[in-house]
Amino acid sequence: MYIILCYDIDVKRVGKVLKTCRRYLHWVQNSVLEGELTGLEYQQLKDELNDIIANNDNVRVYSVRAEKWMKTEILGDSPVNTSSFL
Amino acid sequence: MYIILCYDIDVKRVGKVLKTCRRYLHWVQNSVLEGELTGLEYQQLKDELNDIIANNDNVRVYSVRAEKWMKTEILGDSPVNTSSFL
Repeated sequence: MYIILCYDIDVKRVGKVLKTCRRYLHWVQNSVLEGELTGLEYQQLKDELNDIIANNDNVRVYSVRAEKWMKTEILGDSPVNTSSFL
Repeated sequence: MYIILCYDIDVKRVGKVLKTCRRYLHWVQNSVLEGELTGLEYQQLKDELNDIIANNDNVRVYSVRAEKWMKTEILGDSPVNTSSFL
């Protein structure tokens, strides 16, 4: 399945969430990651994130069976290097 | 088509981008909106956004033919009321 993950996380936890997500998905924009995952990998990622997130944190995960079912369009510049962003 | 729009916009322009997006889509998370659009509506939204965005601004638009082709899962709390967020 192809995954798009968007997160809105408290500054205290956002670094840990990004680090965890990056083990499964690739960063595409501030607070947005994408990638192909198996069902098992997806469940593992959810379990790890559920152990980290707390009040007011919100993670939205969109999944389609295959990337070809979804079109991606980008307006504006490609995102800046992420090392300074969380 | 069903649209997911994620934006990473300079603070000088983000209010205008959110206001424009909200005329077409519904807010679901900080910097993320969703909704069903016709091809014409989608083109109009892109044209309006292209008139607003500038250097280092980035908008990612994911579209699927119908919402039923996509699964949405939410971890954590439902997002806080948006009036204070951009």
